[in-house]
Amino acid sequence: MSAMDGFEKEGPVIGVFDSGFGGLTVLKALLKRLPGAQFSFLGDTARLPYGSKSRRTIARYAAESAQFLVKECGAEFLVIACNTASALALDAIQKAVSVPVLGVIEPGAAAAARASASKDVLVIATEATVASHAYAAACRARGLRAVEKACPLLVPLVEEGWVDHPVTAEVVRIYLRELLQEARRDGYFPDTLMLGCTHYPLIRGVLERVIAELASPLKVGVIDSAEAVAEEVAELVAPPAGTARSRPEIRCFATDSVEKFERLGSRFLGLPVGKVELVDLGG
Amino acid sequence: MSAMDGFEKEGPVIGVFDSGFGGLTVLKALLKRLPGAQFSFLGDTARLPYGSKSRRTIARYAAESAQFLVKECGAEFLVIACNTASALALDAIQKAVSVPVLGVIEPGAAAAARASASKDVLVIATEATVASHAYAAACRARGLRAVEKACPLLVPLVEEGWVDHPVTAEVVRIYLRELLQEARRDGYFPDTLMLGCTHYPLIRGVLERVIAELASPLKVGVIDSAEAVAEEVAELVAPPAGTARSRPEIRCFATDSVEKFERLGSRFLGLPVGKVELVDLGG
Repeated sequence: MSAMDGFEKEGPVIGVFDSGFGGLTVLKALLKRLPGAQFSFLGDTARLPYGSKSRRTIARYAAESAQFLVKECGAEFLVIACNTASALALDAIQKAVSVPVLGVIEPGAAAAARASASKDVLVIATEATVASHAYAAACRARGLRAVEKACPLLVPLVEEGWVDHPVTAEVVRIYLRELLQEARRDGYFPDTLMLGCTHYPLIRGVLERVIAELASPLKVGVIDSAEAVAEEVAELVAPPAGTARSRPEIRCFATDSVEKFERLGSRFLGLPVGKVELVDLGG
Repeated sequence: MSAMDGFEKEGPVIGVFDSGFGGLTVLKALLKRLPGAQFSFLGDTARLPYGSKSRRTIARYAAESAQFLVKECGAEFLVIACNTASALALDAIQKAVSVPVLGVIEPGAAAAARASASKDVLVIATEATVASHAYAAACRARGLRAVEKACPLLVPLVEEGWVDHPVTAEVVRIYLRELLQEARRDGYFPDTLMLGCTHYPLIRGVLERVIAELASPLKVGVIDSAEAVAEEVAELVAPPAGTARSRPEIRCFATDSVEKFERLGSRFLGLPVGKVELVDLGG
């Protein structure tokens, strides 16, 4: 069976890559839209987090991971679920593999452009994503102005499981207050908050509550780049009518402890991740 | 000049290894005791943190790092400043190199045994260190009972620079309250708190204040394993009288962004780290 046969019959094998478990929020959004597709998910858990590392290191790790999904899992379409890898390594990944590659930044910025009336957008993300200014550039290309803020404590808080916790609310309040102050000082009128990291959908409730409280009486809508990329992938790879399987096929791979992946991953995916296979990328 | 010439004249080259910057608190303690020695420090910043990873992965990373310090830097004595690597990979490191290797766990437990009258000790550390129960075992071997707790948010809080911050105090209060409750429920009377991670000395003030508040009217002393290992190294490698240089020689290496190392490292070392050299361990 050639790759094209697979494409015609059941849609392509979709490879989803993240530095850790966070990208499972993107897989969750994909499953909602492509419930009969085949997915291979790789979490580079032995080398996470990417968000605090340099462009050179992130590009090397991400390119190796993408090659694994294409060569070993037969992925015919790659979704880079990791915001940091999308922001800093999309070029490196596209050079490393020959299949189509979609990151989360462009679909996220496109969704923000549709949602924002004031055309001023707030972006929260990891240190590396913010330092790359990838969201600001993608927003600018669509006539939006973006104010970005690194929120390095939010990923560890989510991983500690403090998703509905007073400390998380307080940390969110500190970060968002600083971000809003900076935006107002520079004459921006933001009406949209972009969640520029795959961990943040897990604390979406806290983020919505705090931004509403701080921005009041103005309204700020929340955009999740996981949702945005899933919508775009669904349009690009929708299987022909009547050909899709009724149940998805999901294979999960991790470069470190599969037990931890199985335990934490279910929290992100919203359903059991099943058996996770350990892979060695040599790093 | 042979390695032994160096040893006789000026004391050995001491290699200090950590997964990141945290181990610079150990180097700081070493400099205080061996102000004329030669040090090579390696931070495996491209693959940090180790604290959330598996034994297998930590052992591989730590062994590669130790070999770099011995082969490339001529280290004749290795100090494993990283608690996680000391807890999970000391055997792997000792197998990988032929020079003497000292981790932080045993000196830390020995210091706790000297300090504790009740012989009940509290240990706070990373997830991986706690899961290994290395501190509990080292304490048991010295007639102490240990109650251990993973505190995964403390490293990110220190790296965010929130070392004297109400959120950090609140997180510390939550962790230490749970730890004390567990200790009391099990009939322990702890009088000593072990800082089982090289990041924690930077929030020693907060930890001392909160444990005093929670344990009152009982007293709980704080033991820093960085201090404990430095004392033991100083005894083992003290240069012959009259032969030491008047100023230390320090070379710093990192596997990721040297800019970030130079910026954050000074906070841990308490003085400028100078020029940091980038190395590639192939990971």
